[in-house]
Amino acid sequence: MTSDKAQRTVIFVSDRTGITAELLGKTLLTQFPGIEFRKRTYPFVDTVEKARATLTRIDETAREEGQKPIVFSTLIDKDVRASLTSENAFVIDLFADFIRLLEAELGLESSHALGLSHGIGDELAYQKRMESLNYALSHDDGVHTANYDRAEVILVGVSRTGKTPTCLYLAMQYGIYGANYPLTPDDFTAQALPKPLLTHRDKLYGLTISAERLAKIRHERKPDSRYASLENCQSEIRHAEALLRQAHVPLLDTTSMSVEEIAISILYGTGLVKHLKS
Amino acid sequence: MTSDKAQRTVIFVSDRTGITAELLGKTLLTQFPGIEFRKRTYPFVDTVEKARATLTRIDETAREEGQKPIVFSTLIDKDVRASLTSENAFVIDLFADFIRLLEAELGLESSHALGLSHGIGDELAYQKRMESLNYALSHDDGVHTANYDRAEVILVGVSRTGKTPTCLYLAMQYGIYGANYPLTPDDFTAQALPKPLLTHRDKLYGLTISAERLAKIRHERKPDSRYASLENCQSEIRHAEALLRQAHVPLLDTTSMSVEEIAISILYGTGLVKHLKS
Repeated sequence: MTSDKAQRTVIFVSDRTGITAELLGKTLLTQFPGIEFRKRTYPFVDTVEKARATLTRIDETAREEGQKPIVFSTLIDKDVRASLTSENAFVIDLFADFIRLLEAELGLESSHALGLSHGIGDELAYQKRMESLNYALSHDDGVHTANYDRAEVILVGVSRTGKTPTCLYLAMQYGIYGANYPLTPDDFTAQALPKPLLTHRDKLYGLTISAERLAKIRHERKPDSRYASLENCQSEIRHAEALLRQAHVPLLDTTSMSVEEIAISILYGTGLVKHLKS
Repeated sequence: MTSDKAQRTVIFVSDRTGITAELLGKTLLTQFPGIEFRKRTYPFVDTVEKARATLTRIDETAREEGQKPIVFSTLIDKDVRASLTSENAFVIDLFADFIRLLEAELGLESSHALGLSHGIGDELAYQKRMESLNYALSHDDGVHTANYDRAEVILVGVSRTGKTPTCLYLAMQYGIYGANYPLTPDDFTAQALPKPLLTHRDKLYGLTISAERLAKIRHERKPDSRYASLENCQSEIRHAEALLRQAHVPLLDTTSMSVEEIAISILYGTGLVKHLKS
């Protein structure tokens, strides 16, 4: 993408995946919409040699572009970190200052141990993430309802309200066992919660969405279908909301929410957040 | 969990999901293994009122525990941020200093616009994440191989090397269209890549793992089965590695890697990272 905007190269450097550096760095950059940032990441920079090689490329970029790249770094090891200083870059060390502040407040030296985030880390917690992901996959879309005893939450709503991606996200990130169950016109005729859900009322969490947004999402999947028509979406949502309200199921409007936001809302809305090993 | 360790309460406060604050904050805290941190998060603190309510709870915690909680905050709005200062807490503002540094370097004021990370943000990019997630779900475990033209990467390996979670993660986080195909004893007898893969060699990426780790993972799923036996795992891996090497498929050892690390390694190993809209 080229534009008339001022441009600036941004480089993320991490001793592990770079996910934390990118997350915080990009959030900070969104505060400067007037500039077009060209972003590049160097992950797994965990030796002095790799830091020096990275620095060489940063210096080249500075020379080619005639301006300092902005470098966000999350490097724990002191020697690696020291190897990444350059007069040709504007380096923002996302760890150093905070580590110093915490050392002072806690009255302790930091351990300088590497790689504790985004690695396997706690083996049991990691295993739970993988197992709950398998659970979410095999209890998607109303299948295997016999195993709902194991579920920590069961998402309910009409097709395309975000149930599946939210279950996968809750599992992948938090190790939550989530199932999901679609409400269909049959349930609306019966005017009652589907049978497999009745014995698990306390785990149910309803997702709803505006009819306009739902129609848009469904059109992308099945263009010009009755399924995707605004009229049908309005009807399905009206029925689903009535059914869920009548059954006292909490209801979350996902219209303008991302999967991350839906997941966090559910974590707090259900109280499941209290059971997370953090 | 209680222990003899010193304890300290840590509170994450965010105007959005809190994901960024938790990520960076927890990474920093892992540098102080001598302390047991009790963590709590207040997400969606996006008004002065909510900030004040949060502050009341922080003050209560300080009073109850007789020591200052450590507060990590990622609040963009100046007024909200100003409402969260307390003499009873050690507040680390993960944005403020960096925003100031960037303002100085870029010669611009920051926009103070809220909620640009972890929200839907760029609608098209978000849509691609959801569509690629659907793709990963429907092209898991060797099904629908006819649609491999759409795949950006096809993960290949024996059962339980991490193919499925990695495909889901690549889709969810990066909008990458990934399929995955399991290698089975039939393929080893034939001593050739499975037919559906032959026309997509340039997209193949092999995952392998140590036999010990594989046996452990498989035992959790099917205890004491032939499938999970160390001998069988050794044999499958030996054959799979030979097959993939012979076909010149890149091979990643996932033995000690998390899904995040596997995904990032693939992003960089394949060069797909260059096509990401960041």
